[in-house]
Amino acid sequence: MSLHSARPLVSAFAACLLVVAATCVQAATDPLPSWNEGTAKARIVSFVQAVTDPTGRDYVPPAARVAVFDNDGTLWSEQPVYFQAIFAMDTVKAMAAKDPALAANPAIAAAAKGDLKALGEVIAITHGNTTSDEFAARVRQWTKTAQHPTLHRRYTELTFQPMRELLDYLEANGFSTWIVSGGGVEFMRAFSQEVYGIPPERVIGSSIKTRYEVRDGVPVIVRLPELEFLDDKDGKPVGIHKAIGKRPIAAFGNSDGDFQMLEWTTSGPGLRLGMIVHHDDAAREFAYDRGSHIGGLERGLDEAGTRGWSLISVKNDWNAVYTPAK
Amino acid sequence: MSLHSARPLVSAFAACLLVVAATCVQAATDPLPSWNEGTAKARIVSFVQAVTDPTGRDYVPPAARVAVFDNDGTLWSEQPVYFQAIFAMDTVKAMAAKDPALAANPAIAAAAKGDLKALGEVIAITHGNTTSDEFAARVRQWTKTAQHPTLHRRYTELTFQPMRELLDYLEANGFSTWIVSGGGVEFMRAFSQEVYGIPPERVIGSSIKTRYEVRDGVPVIVRLPELEFLDDKDGKPVGIHKAIGKRPIAAFGNSDGDFQMLEWTTSGPGLRLGMIVHHDDAAREFAYDRGSHIGGLERGLDEAGTRGWSLISVKNDWNAVYTPAK
Repeated sequence: MSLHSARPLVSAFAACLLVVAATCVQAATDPLPSWNEGTAKARIVSFVQAVTDPTGRDYVPPAARVAVFDNDGTLWSEQPVYFQAIFAMDTVKAMAAKDPALAANPAIAAAAKGDLKALGEVIAITHGNTTSDEFAARVRQWTKTAQHPTLHRRYTELTFQPMRELLDYLEANGFSTWIVSGGGVEFMRAFSQEVYGIPPERVIGSSIKTRYEVRDGVPVIVRLPELEFLDDKDGKPVGIHKAIGKRPIAAFGNSDGDFQMLEWTTSGPGLRLGMIVHHDDAAREFAYDRGSHIGGLERGLDEAGTRGWSLISVKNDWNAVYTPAK
Repeated sequence: MSLHSARPLVSAFAACLLVVAATCVQAATDPLPSWNEGTAKARIVSFVQAVTDPTGRDYVPPAARVAVFDNDGTLWSEQPVYFQAIFAMDTVKAMAAKDPALAANPAIAAAAKGDLKALGEVIAITHGNTTSDEFAARVRQWTKTAQHPTLHRRYTELTFQPMRELLDYLEANGFSTWIVSGGGVEFMRAFSQEVYGIPPERVIGSSIKTRYEVRDGVPVIVRLPELEFLDDKDGKPVGIHKAIGKRPIAAFGNSDGDFQMLEWTTSGPGLRLGMIVHHDDAAREFAYDRGSHIGGLERGLDEAGTRGWSLISVKNDWNAVYTPAK
């Protein structure tokens, strides 16, 4: 081989090395490794690049980079029923084991059979008539021990790994991420920091009434068995406005309970992002949308296209579903 | 002069230079220049040093460094009446000038004469029946133009310079600072970022009911003329718990409306700081405490000592009161 003919080969080899190296760097620094390459991932990345580019027309200053996330069905699973309902049932059974009068309450058996009115009573029993500190301790204890009936993992291990990567990716790009859920605010706050990296002050949820009291010289926040605010549907934009006082620029949901949150978010001026997690993976998670008793999705499916919202397919867009157990 | 005898002189001169230089450096870097040296300033500085020293026994991680501030009488003046009441009167007069039916409403004249029930009606007229965006624009316009009746400055120029320095000092030391006020949350949010550097999501206040609506295809948050939450007295710990979900470690107030906020804050474990701005400077600001129709302070004065709270004397602790006009 003459020196002359070797040159293109060397060049080709060098070029190839460069391509391989670039690919390696890209793989090593991909902030969303659990997302398959596809339109959902591409839309997220291009949105983040657009709003963070100070020279671009879509630039948004960090203070306005507010992203809101539903919790049940968006950040963790919600089948066969909302995990908070399972918490209520587990808790009332533990309470009944020590309290014969409570054990005789027919609401417990009825709620176990799916009676929603009875479940409401069980929630009032387990969520009210306690202090905030006691309630938080009760939730933390439950999340450490309780297991999902069919998936046999702790509930905090049923959080979606791709969404946790997304939360981190947004935070790394100057966003503040918020949970906006129909679930109870004090229930979620007991684990939001540890599980999602979202501090209590950035969790918006449904709430019951509370009262400040000084008991034997010790100030406490007492939880009353009475609903104060339902953070669902029309309530979500109201809850967002109440807590944040700014309109988000990105919203992520999975059911029609998130419709108004996506509508409120994406109808503001400038570039906006609205995305819906579509549960279409019965093998790895659950498959449900129209007519589901939990997380029903109809209007969102019908209008996503005209409103510019993107679906996230659990089956196709995620190469991993759950966060690896620790 | 022999060389021998000159030596101590040179040393003394060098030592003096060092002292002067150190004083200059201290003055140049004093984060609280509007505070006179005294017990109030010393208590603030030693508290901040203690909770930020990672090797100390009183160390508090940044996420738990939550400091809460009342607004009226603590961050800005509140005499002769709460500035928000003046805003309501100014606004209703401007509205009445364009609306003969409203002009005929006897509540306006009655409120101007100090009738509190009529003032409530004026507040409902001017604060409800509008969208959040319209209301915020109305407040911003007012803060740009309206002037205090006796001090002849814009209201946002009646904020306390020493407290603004304190907010900055705490933020620089990893605290998150929050407003917790009986004033209206949307009223304060219209200027909190610009005036105090506190973003809307860290303003807690009284609120009226709101509703999400889509008007001719445009989503809006509608303000209803009905009180939802009164963030005063017992309501302050409740409001803090609702919005932050953590107990603060430092609280600053000025009236008995702040009593429970100070109590809740300072009764937690670890080092805590509770301080009360005492209005005792009729020459530069106002002098009032017991029996005042606005910002009454009685229980706070009586119990500050036993509860370990410190008074901040406007007269003695502050060498400047108001933020210089821009």
